[in-house]
Amino acid sequence: MDIKSYMHNVGVEARNASRAMAKAETNTKNLALTTIAKAILREKDALLAANQQDLAAAKAAGMEAAMLDRLTLTEKSIATMAEGLQQIASLADPIGEISDMKYRPSGIQIGKMRVPLGVIGIIYEARPNVTVDAAGLCIKSGNATILRGGSEAIHCNQALAKLVHEGLAAAGLPKAAVQVVETTDRAAVGELITMKEFVDVIVPRGGKGLIERISADARIPVIKHLDGNCHVYVDDEADFEKAIRIVENSKTQRLGTCNTTESLLVARSVSHSMLPKIAEMLISKGIEIRGCAETCALVPAAKKASEEDFYTEYLDAIISCKVVEGLDEAIAHINQHSSQHTEAIVTENYTKARRFLREVDSSSVMVNASTRFADGFEYGLGAEIGISTDKLHARGPVGLDGLTSLKYIVLGDGHVRA
Amino acid sequence: MDIKSYMHNVGVEARNASRAMAKAETNTKNLALTTIAKAILREKDALLAANQQDLAAAKAAGMEAAMLDRLTLTEKSIATMAEGLQQIASLADPIGEISDMKYRPSGIQIGKMRVPLGVIGIIYEARPNVTVDAAGLCIKSGNATILRGGSEAIHCNQALAKLVHEGLAAAGLPKAAVQVVETTDRAAVGELITMKEFVDVIVPRGGKGLIERISADARIPVIKHLDGNCHVYVDDEADFEKAIRIVENSKTQRLGTCNTTESLLVARSVSHSMLPKIAEMLISKGIEIRGCAETCALVPAAKKASEEDFYTEYLDAIISCKVVEGLDEAIAHINQHSSQHTEAIVTENYTKARRFLREVDSSSVMVNASTRFADGFEYGLGAEIGISTDKLHARGPVGLDGLTSLKYIVLGDGHVRA
Repeated sequence: MDIKSYMHNVGVEARNASRAMAKAETNTKNLALTTIAKAILREKDALLAANQQDLAAAKAAGMEAAMLDRLTLTEKSIATMAEGLQQIASLADPIGEISDMKYRPSGIQIGKMRVPLGVIGIIYEARPNVTVDAAGLCIKSGNATILRGGSEAIHCNQALAKLVHEGLAAAGLPKAAVQVVETTDRAAVGELITMKEFVDVIVPRGGKGLIERISADARIPVIKHLDGNCHVYVDDEADFEKAIRIVENSKTQRLGTCNTTESLLVARSVSHSMLPKIAEMLISKGIEIRGCAETCALVPAAKKASEEDFYTEYLDAIISCKVVEGLDEAIAHINQHSSQHTEAIVTENYTKARRFLREVDSSSVMVNASTRFADGFEYGLGAEIGISTDKLHARGPVGLDGLTSLKYIVLGDGHVRA
Repeated sequence: MDIKSYMHNVGVEARNASRAMAKAETNTKNLALTTIAKAILREKDALLAANQQDLAAAKAAGMEAAMLDRLTLTEKSIATMAEGLQQIASLADPIGEISDMKYRPSGIQIGKMRVPLGVIGIIYEARPNVTVDAAGLCIKSGNATILRGGSEAIHCNQALAKLVHEGLAAAGLPKAAVQVVETTDRAAVGELITMKEFVDVIVPRGGKGLIERISADARIPVIKHLDGNCHVYVDDEADFEKAIRIVENSKTQRLGTCNTTESLLVARSVSHSMLPKIAEMLISKGIEIRGCAETCALVPAAKKASEEDFYTEYLDAIISCKVVEGLDEAIAHINQHSSQHTEAIVTENYTKARRFLREVDSSSVMVNASTRFADGFEYGLGAEIGISTDKLHARGPVGLDGLTSLKYIVLGDGHVRA
């Protein structure tokens, strides 16, 4: 197969399908989503069989356990996929929403209409559930999508593609609204991220390595989610009970998520009273502490942190810890070292809470709440395609709105410019 | 001078200044703006002298008349610059604005805060007024900016930079909040558009060639404004008086602006009655008509249009014209040929107006109004840094909000995730 002409054709079909998707009615899109959900439940045996093919090949190729785990479908994960589609169907349709219609002195009335981005290319690792989530979000947001999943999931992804197409057909929507790239050739990714005329945005989902490679080579805007080096700052006016609860939840509820706290800052004047107890809690949960000199003096079990530690997203049972003079140093340290994902302050002081919210330059900034809340479902977006650490376009958890744009609409009655 | 290390230093200083700008109070920013406005009026003789230096060199180098015109400062254009700054000062401060604060079932309260993008690189041709406009918009929106104007305006731009720095100093804001690149070496542009760690977005202002070059080479997101191949579609249910008024204003009010209509579509069933009269009006205004076969049959003075004509932004006394069957063909033609800037329908039909608004994929879509309204001032944005024909982030006229981002803020009372 000639990859270049294959992908060109995929692009042409996606662009054409995007026109039909943009004008699709809400109940048409919902019918596609619920039909896919039902088909997934109905065909669960076939999906499990396709997944077994992928798993056998992956095991033979020596895939590591964590990746095998993500590749594996179960009856439960299939039910979760179907449920996810039902949830997306139940969300309000963002497309066509009109806002801020105002009359101007010239007599025209001007406002904004929410519209799809067009064609979204999604590149992800060997996780079949992403195929369904991404297809669902793109259908509901009126976009066409080109999905390129990890080659190790190809059989399962192709089986899912068939069910997605069944749903689109049942609703009278074009099959090309969701295309799963049929080749495992890596050259297809190179084409996808450079077909400017056919693809409006690329969303990579996966590890930092994948995302950095794609961002470096893409000639199309990328909504990217790099690392989550999240901080909790325990202020000198923190309530101790809240501090210990928030640090515990932020660091230990789950170790491997991007909104897990990786670095703890404690104000100097309360470091003697609070830090040993917080450290004791963390150590009792199996967390290794890598601290600054003052931390190590207060917490004998702590190891010495290197400067590199303060830039690190561990995704593991490790936390870096630094004693700071107060709010100014905490904000400066965060803005220097953070990946601009999510940061929280624990304080009872109104003015300091307000300053932290305004001056910390991250996609989510919190007062007296766990960084683990940074999530599309928790924020009420209903679903998310990722968490953007960019500032342009979507920032933070990206739900349906992040897959849309706003155009201006102008209503007149024969008005012309003076 | 080592350009690479010079620009690196500019980047470091801009990033540092952006922190101070992000937290600057509204009246501090306004004081800077009004001080600069006053300084510009006070130093008008010095500015005119610096401009004379630039003009003499440009004339000696054989610069063409239109470019010389844009390079020239006058007492009036100096007054307009100062007035523009006063206007920006009078706009509401977008920074820190909080919206959509809602409680979630978990107990957290979540919403969004508007924040600056950070550091904005602006690249433009030899137009000294852009130096002041861009500096003003970036100051008000809490960003630091690096300005790289056309080398032919270097003396004038340096003179303006001094006055901008006077205003920043008067308000206690860092000088590096607005840096005018001091070298005319083109390598500086190459550095500016690839310094990912220091620059958050690039805004090129100028001709299509400049913008395409910058977009191709940039490693930083670009808010771009390519061409404006705008359309007016005269529907079969158009009011004739409105049609002729809107076509006249859209095409002939100014020929060289991006929101000028370049292509006219007329529904077949009214082409016999309306097109000859519209053509007569256009011809009487000195406009050349390049039409499809049916147009040429109805309008003897029309020349035959090539397919290329329908893709062309003339910026001149020429309009392309095509007879279409009706709304479907008009929408399909526009979505194929337009540059996605601004399109208008003239119709009295409610359903067709609604379909045109929804299905035309351009940054501004209008009913019964002139395309010439597509403009930041006309839309009530107060000022604009350009008109984006992109879909991501800012689309259409880009005002202060387009230079900002939204971060999530979360307020809790010790809340943790279950």
